[in-house]
Amino acid sequence: MTYCVGVLVREGLVMVADTRTNAGIDNVATFRKLTVFENPGERAIAIATAGNLATSQAMVNLITEGVRHPESDEVETIASVRSMGEAASLVGRAIRHTCQHAARGQSQAESFEMTALLGGQIGERAMRLFMIYAAGNFIEATVDTPYLQIGEHKYGKPILDRAVTNATALGDALKLALISMDSTMRSNLGVGLPIDLAVVRRDALALDLAHRIDREDAYFQDLRERWSSALRAAHQAIPMPPYGKA
Amino acid sequence: MTYCVGVLVREGLVMVADTRTNAGIDNVATFRKLTVFENPGERAIAIATAGNLATSQAMVNLITEGVRHPESDEVETIASVRSMGEAASLVGRAIRHTCQHAARGQSQAESFEMTALLGGQIGERAMRLFMIYAAGNFIEATVDTPYLQIGEHKYGKPILDRAVTNATALGDALKLALISMDSTMRSNLGVGLPIDLAVVRRDALALDLAHRIDREDAYFQDLRERWSSALRAAHQAIPMPPYGKA
Repeated sequence: MTYCVGVLVREGLVMVADTRTNAGIDNVATFRKLTVFENPGERAIAIATAGNLATSQAMVNLITEGVRHPESDEVETIASVRSMGEAASLVGRAIRHTCQHAARGQSQAESFEMTALLGGQIGERAMRLFMIYAAGNFIEATVDTPYLQIGEHKYGKPILDRAVTNATALGDALKLALISMDSTMRSNLGVGLPIDLAVVRRDALALDLAHRIDREDAYFQDLRERWSSALRAAHQAIPMPPYGKA
Repeated sequence: MTYCVGVLVREGLVMVADTRTNAGIDNVATFRKLTVFENPGERAIAIATAGNLATSQAMVNLITEGVRHPESDEVETIASVRSMGEAASLVGRAIRHTCQHAARGQSQAESFEMTALLGGQIGERAMRLFMIYAAGNFIEATVDTPYLQIGEHKYGKPILDRAVTNATALGDALKLALISMDSTMRSNLGVGLPIDLAVVRRDALALDLAHRIDREDAYFQDLRERWSSALRAAHQAIPMPPYGKA
């Protein structure tokens, strides 16, 4: 399993991904699922992947090494595309290509599938955040829905639904993404530490933060404890149900 | 969709179920999914169902009208079984019977499936809580895992995982079940008001509470608002992430 979340607020972009992969519950390993592509002053892009690990790694490889554009015949890479829209198309084509290649002649084509989150900014173009499906098509985060999730998304969604808006400060967006990750890790053992973070401030065109949270991370431990005790205090502060006897 | 949760604590049993059913997103209706069987002083039992509505209603009908026991040839009903263990077997047989009956000659047998929560107490026997699968087999809540869920269970699980133990007071268990239901309703439109509640105090052998929460319920509105503002306050109280620039 995997859990990745991207949040696009007025101030910038937050991407958070766990690192646990498993082929059956008896075969668990740690792999980076969050990759950043940075050319400071020119572009800062982050990609998180969920689904088949071989397909995910092949896709990242492909967009790094180059994919021939179907019409212009130009070789495009994540370092050469001119906008986040082009980047989303590139990732979409790379996902479709790697999925199809892996699934050729196989009966269970679905198990080779993957999805991705792609966020960032190139030059003076808009900062954008996309979720890209196995079919290569994609949706984009908007002011109405400023976050996107891939993988095991349900456990961590309630807090995002309640607290994240386009106006949320960048630091708060990161905190909320970490709380969302914590809720997911508690309920699904397939999602686990370390956690990779990337933060890009709007118009900075460089990573504000690229960090890995491991088991010893004091801030994350403190966040988990504070959140748990706040939840306990919150439900204790709610009055008892007044409903009378049947 | 559906969400039902049962919590079995030292003091007793709480069962909460929504009432929204849908056959496609354009065909939404309200049906009771929580049924109580009470003979005050002798037994108090609650059953919640998720999955195919026709199968669920047929199952409740069947356990009310009677099912012939495969070995003794005796006709058993939910009012005649002598223990919660027998009640779980009865519900399991009724589910298997109705599922098989509905699926006969159909290619998509899965869509006739259902699951159930069954909790309560009969006479001096133990109070118990079961989750019964479509196959008719079942698992039981224990001191280690005092709650069971059916239907859309993920959104509402984090709060239960953090806060519910066997020692939780009965009123708190009801509050937590309602918070869990609120989180689910916010994230999945297929789960909705009204909500049915049943509370049975251990050894009371009668319903302590059988109540329906509708849109106008002041306590539930207050609980939702308090919970939302407590969550906002909780994440705002957590210090900003200290991670430096990349």
